[in-house]
Amino acid sequence: MEEKIILSHGDGGKFTSTLINELFYKYYGNEILLKGGDSAVFSVKTRRRLAFSTDSFVIKPLFFQGGDIGKLAVCGTINDLAVSGAKPLYLSAGFIIEEGFSIGDLEVIVRSMGDICRETGTMIITGDTKVVEKGDADGLFINTAGVGVIENRYMPKKIKNGDRIIITGSIAEHGTAITLERYKIKAAGSFGSDCGSVYNIISSLAPFYKGIKLMRDPTRGGVAAALNEISALAGKGIRIYENLIPIRKEVIAVCNILGLDPLYLASEGRAILAVDPSMSHEILKCIRSCENGKDASIIGSFCDSCSNLVYLETEVGGRRLLNTLEAPMLPRIC
Amino acid sequence: MEEKIILSHGDGGKFTSTLINELFYKYYGNEILLKGGDSAVFSVKTRRRLAFSTDSFVIKPLFFQGGDIGKLAVCGTINDLAVSGAKPLYLSAGFIIEEGFSIGDLEVIVRSMGDICRETGTMIITGDTKVVEKGDADGLFINTAGVGVIENRYMPKKIKNGDRIIITGSIAEHGTAITLERYKIKAAGSFGSDCGSVYNIISSLAPFYKGIKLMRDPTRGGVAAALNEISALAGKGIRIYENLIPIRKEVIAVCNILGLDPLYLASEGRAILAVDPSMSHEILKCIRSCENGKDASIIGSFCDSCSNLVYLETEVGGRRLLNTLEAPMLPRIC
Repeated sequence: MEEKIILSHGDGGKFTSTLINELFYKYYGNEILLKGGDSAVFSVKTRRRLAFSTDSFVIKPLFFQGGDIGKLAVCGTINDLAVSGAKPLYLSAGFIIEEGFSIGDLEVIVRSMGDICRETGTMIITGDTKVVEKGDADGLFINTAGVGVIENRYMPKKIKNGDRIIITGSIAEHGTAITLERYKIKAAGSFGSDCGSVYNIISSLAPFYKGIKLMRDPTRGGVAAALNEISALAGKGIRIYENLIPIRKEVIAVCNILGLDPLYLASEGRAILAVDPSMSHEILKCIRSCENGKDASIIGSFCDSCSNLVYLETEVGGRRLLNTLEAPMLPRIC
Repeated sequence: MEEKIILSHGDGGKFTSTLINELFYKYYGNEILLKGGDSAVFSVKTRRRLAFSTDSFVIKPLFFQGGDIGKLAVCGTINDLAVSGAKPLYLSAGFIIEEGFSIGDLEVIVRSMGDICRETGTMIITGDTKVVEKGDADGLFINTAGVGVIENRYMPKKIKNGDRIIITGSIAEHGTAITLERYKIKAAGSFGSDCGSVYNIISSLAPFYKGIKLMRDPTRGGVAAALNEISALAGKGIRIYENLIPIRKEVIAVCNILGLDPLYLASEGRAILAVDPSMSHEILKCIRSCENGKDASIIGSFCDSCSNLVYLETEVGGRRLLNTLEAPMLPRIC
């Protein structure tokens, strides 16, 4: 019989200890986490400022092509820190588990979390486990919070017209992969979420930090939402070009069939950068030298004739306003 | 018609912004939070080590005598930091909300969070909001994570036989209050959860820090679980005396009727301290001078004849082993 989560796994007693010792410590144990205690204690050997971020993950389904909720929960907070100019260091992990959840599935998820921590040099140093009665949650929710050290300070107010917009890779793959999984649609070709860390790309850009003025990751709300946020912070309009946006043929095909707009679909392993035009080609070259950045592209620039709005110049020569959506196309994609 | 949470409140777009601006910023806005962005940025003007802690709150019901899930979520993480020897500074708040949840109720909860932040001098500087479909969560879950600066380093290995155990106030009030609320039992007298911050007490003990060797808060699993943790960390047994344990008559009465053992019921505003006997009376006096510490008591000590176990000397002269429970008496009390 498959082992299931019971309420006692969340009561802070012996069953909780079993989960901690046999799953969490096994897959992502480290010197700080293993000390136990109500808080983790760490020191930062720098006087630089720190970044602090949190995200709860309620994605449905929990497993998808290219990842699972565990990988997503670690990468999501790593990326939030990374696009804020911080080197991600330490994470917390809070699990809310529905009674009856498969311990085997939990193990796969926790293993993913450990794998991505090792891959990115981050550590989960504190955590919490709660279990709610059957029917009171949908399987598993994970919250991660993270602390990082600021390496580069962004200056959105220094953005000028003509500054370039770069995206580090092809868009909308996470949102499309989740849609296929959720509605059990079989698509041709190998195809999965782009879920992953972007910190490797951002850290490789260290020599060019002074040319990078702002970064965002296009998650919920996709490229359109991220560009609108960037535009608002800069106080300037943006024009992007449809033919410059990297996007896989399979993503276009799936979106056409389902009537989804890929500009509003989430990526979970991409960043959008606002950069000085004098350094944009060096930055692009550097991003493309990373495995997960080889499809990077300059997709547009800040413009003085855009009235603080975000415009898309279409391939057929039209011009389309990219608003932030009023209603979500897809709930629970992260 | 009462306003309800809809899925769009969690999509990162305009409805999410409305929640952020009209609730979160209104009740706990501060200079750092108001900057928005994917991460909050802060600096710590010290080279001391930092503490990091997280907790998810799934309490049922959300409102109870003496508090609500919001107050509990802020105090819970403040207390985890405080008993680790840290001054709590910055918090994150992650909301997972069920579609259809009352915005009026959410406002009451968010207001509680703001009130307790102001009262304790802490700040919520980053957050996240997710909404899941009706039936996929039980109303509202909140995760908080927190960062603090270590002020006092505990040395559980320096605990000696004869060191005293102090509790800062009367026990089991949170667990009892939740039980009454959940089962709609009317008890005589004014009675509520002890939910609150213990940092005020701990910071007032600064002159005596070198006499305090370890602290824990007796939340899930109650005083019994906390004493077992302390005993395990110290590698020593503990003997406590039933007649020295501060407990309200109403709590005893309710527990007797319901067959609950108050030693296993959660407090949410108490701390247990292991202290050097030479300073125990000064420490006790100092705790008692705080409003929320006036019922503090020395309840026992580490002993060499306890074989690393926790014993209770009962009022009638018996001796009882206080194990950690194998099964929870009450799920979802925090």
